[in-house]
Amino acid sequence: MKVFKGNMIYTKEPKRFEILEQGYVTVDDAGRIVSVSKEAPEGIETAHVVDFENHMVIPGFTDLHLHPNQYPNDGLGYNYELMEWIENYATPVNGLYKNEQITRRIFSALIEDLWRYGILHSVQFGALDLRTNDILFEMMIDSGLYCYLGKNHTDYKKDRHEVETTQESMRCAQYLIDKWEGKSPRVHYIMTPSFAPGCTEEMMKWCGEMSRKYKLPLQSHLDENKKEVGMVLDRFTDCKNYAQVYQKYHMFGNDIKTVMAHCVYTTEDEIQALRYAGVYVAHCPHSNCNLGSGIMPLRRYLDMGIKVGLGSDISAGHTLNMMDNMRSAMEMSKVLYVEEGEMPLSTSEAFYLATKGGGSFFGEVGSFERGYLFNALVVEDDAVASIGGHTLEERIERFIYNGDDRQIKQRFVEGKELKKPVFEI
Amino acid sequence: MKVFKGNMIYTKEPKRFEILEQGYVTVDDAGRIVSVSKEAPEGIETAHVVDFENHMVIPGFTDLHLHPNQYPNDGLGYNYELMEWIENYATPVNGLYKNEQITRRIFSALIEDLWRYGILHSVQFGALDLRTNDILFEMMIDSGLYCYLGKNHTDYKKDRHEVETTQESMRCAQYLIDKWEGKSPRVHYIMTPSFAPGCTEEMMKWCGEMSRKYKLPLQSHLDENKKEVGMVLDRFTDCKNYAQVYQKYHMFGNDIKTVMAHCVYTTEDEIQALRYAGVYVAHCPHSNCNLGSGIMPLRRYLDMGIKVGLGSDISAGHTLNMMDNMRSAMEMSKVLYVEEGEMPLSTSEAFYLATKGGGSFFGEVGSFERGYLFNALVVEDDAVASIGGHTLEERIERFIYNGDDRQIKQRFVEGKELKKPVFEI
Repeated sequence: MKVFKGNMIYTKEPKRFEILEQGYVTVDDAGRIVSVSKEAPEGIETAHVVDFENHMVIPGFTDLHLHPNQYPNDGLGYNYELMEWIENYATPVNGLYKNEQITRRIFSALIEDLWRYGILHSVQFGALDLRTNDILFEMMIDSGLYCYLGKNHTDYKKDRHEVETTQESMRCAQYLIDKWEGKSPRVHYIMTPSFAPGCTEEMMKWCGEMSRKYKLPLQSHLDENKKEVGMVLDRFTDCKNYAQVYQKYHMFGNDIKTVMAHCVYTTEDEIQALRYAGVYVAHCPHSNCNLGSGIMPLRRYLDMGIKVGLGSDISAGHTLNMMDNMRSAMEMSKVLYVEEGEMPLSTSEAFYLATKGGGSFFGEVGSFERGYLFNALVVEDDAVASIGGHTLEERIERFIYNGDDRQIKQRFVEGKELKKPVFEI
Repeated sequence: MKVFKGNMIYTKEPKRFEILEQGYVTVDDAGRIVSVSKEAPEGIETAHVVDFENHMVIPGFTDLHLHPNQYPNDGLGYNYELMEWIENYATPVNGLYKNEQITRRIFSALIEDLWRYGILHSVQFGALDLRTNDILFEMMIDSGLYCYLGKNHTDYKKDRHEVETTQESMRCAQYLIDKWEGKSPRVHYIMTPSFAPGCTEEMMKWCGEMSRKYKLPLQSHLDENKKEVGMVLDRFTDCKNYAQVYQKYHMFGNDIKTVMAHCVYTTEDEIQALRYAGVYVAHCPHSNCNLGSGIMPLRRYLDMGIKVGLGSDISAGHTLNMMDNMRSAMEMSKVLYVEEGEMPLSTSEAFYLATKGGGSFFGEVGSFERGYLFNALVVEDDAVASIGGHTLEERIERFIYNGDDRQIKQRFVEGKELKKPVFEI
């Protein structure tokens, strides 16, 4: 048993921070939280006490949507909209991964950045190529970080270069599942059909079946961009909206855990479908701005009780800095406040999205509650905030708005410090 | 004479980057650029050559609008709108400055951050208090950075606590002008009436007169927030818009250099007035989001040929990171693109605003052209970009979207390296 002492800050629910000034979190040997208290817990005299002094201690972040092989495109090509961006940036980058050393250098930089920004849990939209995913599985397991990772299926060829056949694509996923699923308690496979315009019906049906067969979660994209929505409706004439395509091939349902990125242009029926099936929404505000996609109706989803987390959407989004992604979510909601009088996202709500909201996709992570894993970050104030006079609520607010990775002094996973991953390349 | 060699990237005009791969910039002893060329200049054999190798070399940034004494409020209180934020945050923070040591610690952190982020030129909206401004003048001169700084005048008392009398306020400005103006070629005084709702008519008239008498520029706020605009129109019933108040008291005019922060809710008449008088607009996109003010019609201003630069608006804006402020300008313009089909701000346009656009308020800074001061930053790629394969245009794009202060390896002012300012406190 270990006792962590410090300024514990977390969100049980979106509307307010829970703040324990110099509080105690007791953790069992498996890294699960046994108690959270303002007073010293019983048995503290004999326990291993880790004192974080005046630092802030917060749950580790979750990035619900990122494309690891797109990392070299970070910050590039945002003069394009989605479909043109895919053609000009997202597709050509795959050429880099023919070289294993470059592949490892890119993923090493990515994983180091995940660690630096305290993204202890991430849902990664893998590459098409088997070997690239294979290397990333190996490196993610070595890193000690939590993740879901899946091979991207893009087997529908109309108007596209031939990228892979349906059979090849399926074989590749089956190989990765057989090789990696169950190898690590922290890294799991996730079924990953690219998006309706990129998949054959056969593939989508198979992905839904594989999810159920192996009890794997599933991720894809929904309603990101108007042109994309138009493409879907043109092709799937029997579906009255985009989400219905996924429903038709059984990719939504309470018996599987599904996350859909973007959800900018959802209709009322689609919102009901997301809610009914308990689908997670990965909100990617920077990406939706960068590619001129639009602003997601976040407040509507929160009011409806839809599960929402934040996604960096590397690299249509430009940064893994989750504080920056929280700020972006708040800024976009302020735009809707100005334009439509919608209640803006508060600091605690943004924090919730980046911690417990997205974290719940992984189970009991993202909060400091009994039964949760102690996956946590130790945060130092910046130079000016440390001059003092600020409440803990103001200090966390300041960190959310103006913090960076240098202020994250330590990362804990399952109650143990996770050191910076180092890869030999 | 010195010759700088490296990848020179700058914007003569907004619409495109000028990129000299392994180019040469020759600088005279006063730090002014004599030539810019792709080929080695004549006389290079005997010149002092500084080789930046594969780094990018860009003009130093200009922050056209920031409130130095608000730095401790950075990231705080953005659940408020403007007038409530002033009451709850911007006003109370002034209490900190009764303690000289704290004052120096705050300004030391601020100046270090200006330096870190490559903000070689800033237009600072000073505090009310004489001593606070006095200390900042001294420290800014010591820093070696360029700035305009002025004492904030807030002498109108309706609905406000009494903060200063008109006479006191004037005496204080006169003292600072007498003491500091002319002391340094880099640090100058700027007349600083807070904003129309905070000033008496007498004060505004006096500020315009002082600008002309001492040939000083002038800064204030315009059309930031709807409630603020309403207050102005209620009080100045003889003026048909907010800008007319400033015109009435002769604060606009081609004989003085004026900068107005925000300009979100300008009417057509006001836009014409800004253009006619050559008034600079300090665009503060983060601030306008944080306080739910609105989105400035940037494209309209650019199309009209109005002079625009970027302002961090510390601390209604939360960051001095000018790359972040550029990104915010692009994101807000993307929102208007999605909603109204307006042409979004390109990367080169955003870069122009942060360099030559705002820099021209200081004269010939912000570009690498003959006659300009070599006030420049040396920028290193991040880990992934350095894997290679990117053009220089992509590398600068990536830095704009995803760069931070750690990538700025050196700062040059007037052709000489400016080391990190260190203050004994």
